[in-house]
Amino acid sequence: MASNTFGNLLRITTFGESHGIALGVIIDGCPAGITLSEKDFLGDLARRRPGQSAVTTARQEADAPTILSGVFEGKTTGMPIAVTVQNTNQKPEAYEKLRTEFRIGHADATFASKYGHRDHRGGGRQSGRETVARVIAGVVAKKILPKNLRIIGHTVQIGSLEAGVYKPETIEKNPMRCADPAVAKTMEAYVLKLKSEANSVGGLIEIRVKNPPKDLGDPVFGKLKSRLADALMTIGAVTGVSYGAGFRTAGMEGKDYVKNTDNFGGMLGGISTGDDLILNISIKPASSIGQVAKEGRHDPCIVPRVIPVAEAMVALVLADCYMLQRAYRS
Amino acid sequence: MASNTFGNLLRITTFGESHGIALGVIIDGCPAGITLSEKDFLGDLARRRPGQSAVTTARQEADAPTILSGVFEGKTTGMPIAVTVQNTNQKPEAYEKLRTEFRIGHADATFASKYGHRDHRGGGRQSGRETVARVIAGVVAKKILPKNLRIIGHTVQIGSLEAGVYKPETIEKNPMRCADPAVAKTMEAYVLKLKSEANSVGGLIEIRVKNPPKDLGDPVFGKLKSRLADALMTIGAVTGVSYGAGFRTAGMEGKDYVKNTDNFGGMLGGISTGDDLILNISIKPASSIGQVAKEGRHDPCIVPRVIPVAEAMVALVLADCYMLQRAYRS
Amino acid sequence: MASNTFGNLLRITTFGESHGIALGVIIDGCPAGITLSEKDFLGDLARRRPGQSAVTTARQEADAPTILSGVFEGKTTGMPIAVTVQNTNQKPEAYEKLRTEFRIGHADATFASKYGHRDHRGGGRQSGRETVARVIAGVVAKKILPKNLRIIGHTVQIGSLEAGVYKPETIEKNPMRCADPAVAKTMEAYVLKLKSEANSVGGLIEIRVKNPPKDLGDPVFGKLKSRLADALMTIGAVTGVSYGAGFRTAGMEGKDYVKNTDNFGGMLGGISTGDDLILNISIKPASSIGQVAKEGRHDPCIVPRVIPVAEAMVALVLADCYMLQRAYRS
Amino acid sequence: MASNTFGNLLRITTFGESHGIALGVIIDGCPAGITLSEKDFLGDLARRRPGQSAVTTARQEADAPTILSGVFEGKTTGMPIAVTVQNTNQKPEAYEKLRTEFRIGHADATFASKYGHRDHRGGGRQSGRETVARVIAGVVAKKILPKNLRIIGHTVQIGSLEAGVYKPETIEKNPMRCADPAVAKTMEAYVLKLKSEANSVGGLIEIRVKNPPKDLGDPVFGKLKSRLADALMTIGAVTGVSYGAGFRTAGMEGKDYVKNTDNFGGMLGGISTGDDLILNISIKPASSIGQVAKEGRHDPCIVPRVIPVAEAMVALVLADCYMLQRAYRS
Repeated sequence: MASNTFGNLLRITTFGESHGIALGVIIDGCPAGITLSEKDFLGDLARRRPGQSAVTTARQEADAPTILSGVFEGKTTGMPIAVTVQNTNQKPEAYEKLRTEFRIGHADATFASKYGHRDHRGGGRQSGRETVARVIAGVVAKKILPKNLRIIGHTVQIGSLEAGVYKPETIEKNPMRCADPAVAKTMEAYVLKLKSEANSVGGLIEIRVKNPPKDLGDPVFGKLKSRLADALMTIGAVTGVSYGAGFRTAGMEGKDYVKNTDNFGGMLGGISTGDDLILNISIKPASSIGQVAKEGRHDPCIVPRVIPVAEAMVALVLADCYMLQRAYRS
Repeated sequence: MASNTFGNLLRITTFGESHGIALGVIIDGCPAGITLSEKDFLGDLARRRPGQSAVTTARQEADAPTILSGVFEGKTTGMPIAVTVQNTNQKPEAYEKLRTEFRIGHADATFASKYGHRDHRGGGRQSGRETVARVIAGVVAKKILPKNLRIIGHTVQIGSLEAGVYKPETIEKNPMRCADPAVAKTMEAYVLKLKSEANSVGGLIEIRVKNPPKDLGDPVFGKLKSRLADALMTIGAVTGVSYGAGFRTAGMEGKDYVKNTDNFGGMLGGISTGDDLILNISIKPASSIGQVAKEGRHDPCIVPRVIPVAEAMVALVLADCYMLQRAYRS
Repeated sequence: MASNTFGNLLRITTFGESHGIALGVIIDGCPAGITLSEKDFLGDLARRRPGQSAVTTARQEADAPTILSGVFEGKTTGMPIAVTVQNTNQKPEAYEKLRTEFRIGHADATFASKYGHRDHRGGGRQSGRETVARVIAGVVAKKILPKNLRIIGHTVQIGSLEAGVYKPETIEKNPMRCADPAVAKTMEAYVLKLKSEANSVGGLIEIRVKNPPKDLGDPVFGKLKSRLADALMTIGAVTGVSYGAGFRTAGMEGKDYVKNTDNFGGMLGGISTGDDLILNISIKPASSIGQVAKEGRHDPCIVPRVIPVAEAMVALVLADCYMLQRAYRS
Repeated sequence: MASNTFGNLLRITTFGESHGIALGVIIDGCPAGITLSEKDFLGDLARRRPGQSAVTTARQEADAPTILSGVFEGKTTGMPIAVTVQNTNQKPEAYEKLRTEFRIGHADATFASKYGHRDHRGGGRQSGRETVARVIAGVVAKKILPKNLRIIGHTVQIGSLEAGVYKPETIEKNPMRCADPAVAKTMEAYVLKLKSEANSVGGLIEIRVKNPPKDLGDPVFGKLKSRLADALMTIGAVTGVSYGAGFRTAGMEGKDYVKNTDNFGGMLGGISTGDDLILNISIKPASSIGQVAKEGRHDPCIVPRVIPVAEAMVALVLADCYMLQRAYRS
C-alpha cells in the first residue's frame, strides 16, 4: 500500500521533502461549509516551528501555507483541500556529506537500502519537516470536532526531570510546554546546557483530550486506542505509546487498577467512554549529537515541538472516528 | 470503516462471539502452494487456551479448527482461507446478569451505549475468545515469512517481579512464559496467591523478532513501528506499546541513546534495519476481581496467554509488509 | 490487495469453493438493531438457485444458510455477521478431467497460470456458486436501505429476442424474468431448444432502482456510476455495464440526449439525483457447450439467475453509499 | 470514504477546481529509480488539451506541470510525487450565472444538494479540467509497466458514423483520433456542422492494450475487468464500459462466442490471459448546447479528448495490478 495517506473518512495525503520546492497535504473528506483560511494554520505552525525558542534548533523555517483548492469564498466545499508550503530555505550544499555518509540513529541507511535512490538533502522525505503537513491537517480536523473538545499536550518529563504539578494555563507560556512552571525552568536550563555540549535528551508527553465524544472507535481492529497508537507512532521521534495507566499497569493489581477511572484512559473495549482521553508518548533524544550536531541541524530537545504534531494526529483520528460514528446511526 | 478486518495484502477478517455458534477468521491474500492443515493451528491454540495451567482461568475451551476453504489437497490455493471453531461450551444462563449489570473496567457499558443491542453472554464479541481467530491467522502469516525468522514473546514483569536473566529455551517450560526460570517460580506463586484472593495482576511482555527481513515498513504513515503499535493495541489487554528503548528514552541523553543499536529496536525511519526487532507491551490486570471474579471467569494473570496473540499480530504485520516490499521491487 | 472483500462502511468478505465443505460471507458494518434471521435469505437464494426451472442448469444445490455470528435474539448487534452454506453436493470425481483439461472461455487456464495450485472441482473458487454469498449479503444491504426503495432486475433481451412491453408485476412469474409475458414465452422456447442442442445464449438485463436516496456517490473517483460498474463487473458473466442511455449515447446528439432525464440514469456528476437509477448489463453465453456441456453442468441461459446477484451487488453499493452519506452530514 | 484517491499500491490523489489557483495530483507508491521530468507529461497533456483542434472547445488552457516532490536529480525516489498545474485562465465573472442557474445534464444541482456550498466557477471540481491530473498520473503509470506494452485508444463511432478500417498509425494524425482516415474526415465535417449549430454528439471509443502481462487481476472482487470498469466509469463523460464482445454478447450464442478469443477481451475469470485487452466505452454528448453552449465553453465532440484520459485510467489500473501481482510471487 502506498503509505503517505492516513485516515478513512477524513483522509490526508502528505508529500514533499525537506529541501524540495514545496511540501504539503491534501485533506480529503472534510465536510462542506466549514470556515477556513490560511490564517487558521498559523498558530499551530508557529508552535511546531524550529527556532521558536532557544531550547530548540536554530534553523528558521518560513512556513507560509497556501490553500490551492477545496475552499471557496472562505468556506470548505467538501472537495479535497490542498495546502502547500514553499521551502524557502534550500541550501542543498550544506547537506552534501549526507549523500554518502549515513548518520547513526537516522533513516539514511534504511532509505538507501530500501529505495536505492534518495533525496539526501536535510533528510529529504525522512525529515521532521514533513510534520508541517500534519499540523495543517490537524487544524482542519479540530474544526470538524465538537467545539468544546480540547486536545492538550504537555511535557511531563525531560531526562530525569519530572513535572510535579499540573497548571494547564502555563503550558504555552514556557518553551518546554511543561504544566509545572518551576520544573519548566529547570528543564530549560538543562536543555541549554545540553545544547552547548552538542548533546540531546528525550522526554515524555501527556496528551489529554477534554470533552471527547463517547462511542468513538470499534470493538476489534479499529479500536480507538489502536488507531491512536498507530497515529502517534507515525511520528518519527515517538518510541512508545500508552493510554490510561499505561506501562504502570505492568506493576498493578486488579483491585488497584479498577479504583481510578483515569487508569482506563477514557476508553473501554476500544470505545470512548466520554471521560477524558489520556495518552502518553515517549520521545527519543535526537541522534544528531557531537560533530554531526555541530555541522547540521541540532535539536537538543525536540519534545516541545512534537506536541503540536501529536495533537494534530490525535485530532485526525478523533475527527475520522467522529464522522464514522455518524454513518452507523440510523 | 467496517473494522473487523486487519491488513492489506495479507488481510484477515474475524467474526464470532464468545457464546455464539462458532467464531472464525477469513485469511485473504495468502499465496498459493503453502502446505497447511488444521494440525498446524493446534500448537499456538493450545498456548492461547484458558485452563492450560493453574495460573490462568479454569474455563476450558475446546478449540478444534476446521478449514472450510482455500486449501486443496493439503496446500493453499491463493483463495480465502476460512477457518471456524465451534463454541462447544455455551452456557448463556451463566451470564444472564451481564445483560443489565455492567462490570467495571469492561466494555459492557461502551458496547451498550454504542450499539444499543448486544450479545452479553460472556462478553459476546468483546470477549478475549475472539483472539482464537488471530492465533489461527498468525500461523498462516508465519508460513509466509522466511523460514529462519522467529517471533519470541516472553514475560519480563508481573507486578513488582522482574525477570533478571534471559534463557529463551526455558520460556515455554513454565506457565508464566518467563525466560528467567527462578523468577518464573516466584511469579507463579504470586499469581496463585492472587487467584485465591480473587485478585489479578498486570505485566510486561517483550517480543523479539530474530532474523527479520530488512526494508520492511514505509517512511511516513505505514512505518513498521506504527503498524506494529496498531496491531498490538488491538489486543484488549494491552495498555502500551514501545520499541527499542521505548519509554526509557524519556530519560535518556542522545550520547547514551546512540551507543547501543538495541535502543533503535531494529527500525530506523520506520523501516526495518535487519537487526532484531524489539517490542514491549504492557498488560493490564483483569478487571474481573472480587465477587465478579468468583461468579464468572477469573483470570488472575492473563499475561502468559496474551503472548501467542501478540506474536500472531506481529507475524501478520511482518507478513503483510514482506509481501508489500516485493511489490516495489522491479 | 487481498480482493475477496467488497465495500467500505458496509463491507463483505466471501469465501468458499464450489465443492469444498462450505462457502459463506462475513458482512461487516451492518448497524445494530436490524431484525434478521436465516429465513430472510431464502427468497433470494431460491431466485439464484440452479434447477429452479427447465431453462437453467439441472444441478440442484441445497442452500441452507446458517448465521454463525452478529445476530442475537433475532436482531443484528453491529458485529460481523457470518453466514455459511454447506456444500452438500460434493462429487469431486465428476470433475476429475478439469484437473488438467482447461475449458475454453473458462478461468481454468488463468487460475492455473496465476496460482499454480488450484481446486479444479466444478470450477472451485471461480464457480458461479460463489454468488450465493453475495445474494445473502444483498439481503442485509436491502434491510439497511430505505423501506420504499426497490431494486428491480429483469431480462430485456435474449439472443435476438427483445422485450417490447414493461409489466413489472409479471417478472417473477416467468422463468426468464422478462417483463413482457408474451416475449418471455418465446424466449423460453428458444432456450429449451438451445438446451437440447447443448448450446447457450447471452442476454441483456435492466436494473431499475425505484426511490433511491439522492446525494449518493462522490464527485471524482467514488462516483455512484463507477462503484456500480465495479460491483456489476465483478459478476463473472457480465461483459458490459452502462447507465441511462448507455451505449446508445454513442449515436446521440446533445439536443436529443438532454430531452429525457431517463438518459441520465438517475445520476449526474457521479451523484444520485433522486430519480430512478437505470442500469444495463450484458451477459455472455455460457462457454460450456457441446461435449463439455453434456459432461458437466450445462446452463443454456444464465441470464435469469444473474438477476438476483446483480440486484444484490447494487444493494451493497447503495447501502454503502447511504451510510457514507450520513457520515458527512454534520 | 474520502474519494479523491484511486488505486492501491500505485495510488493517486487528485485535487483542484477548474478556476482555483491550481490543480494537481499526488502519485504515491511509484518505485524509486524511474527517470521522470516535467517534459514527460507534455505529450499526453497536449493530447487532452482543449483547443487542440477546431472540433473541440476553443478554450485554451496552458498546462505547465511542476513536480514539487518525489523526484531527485531526475529520478523518482519512491516518495510521493506531487505535480501541480496553475490555472492561468481564471475568469470567474464569466461563470457568475452558474452560481444559481443549474444547467441540465450537469452536476450543478447534485453538487448543490449534496454539499450546499460549492465553487460554481466553470464547474469547479466537477469540471473536466480535473482530468489533467489523471493524464499526468497515467504518464507515471506507463513508466512502471513493461516497455513493450501499448495502450491505444481510438474513436470507432461518432453519432451514426462508424470507422470501417483499422489503421492504427493514422489515429494521432486526425483530430477525431479515428483509425479510419476516410471516416475521420466525414466525422470532422459532421462535428464542425454541430459546432456551428451549438449542438454536440457522443461516440464510442475502443481501447486496446498490446502486450499486457498475463496474471493481472483477481478472481472475485478485484477482477481486472471490474477494476477497469470502475476506472473508466470515473470519467464524467463515460456512460458505458464493456470488454471483448461486450454488449454484443447479449445477442450471441455460445457456439459463436467461443470461436473468437477476441470475444474474451484478453481476460478470463477476471485475470488477464496475455492476449490483447479490448475495452469499449461509450461517451455521452456534451449537455452544454444551444444558449448555454454559446455563453460558456462549447465542446461539440469531447470524444477525442477523452481518449488520453481513458488511456491514463487503464494505465493506472494495469500498473497497480502489475505491482500487486509481484507481491504474491514468492
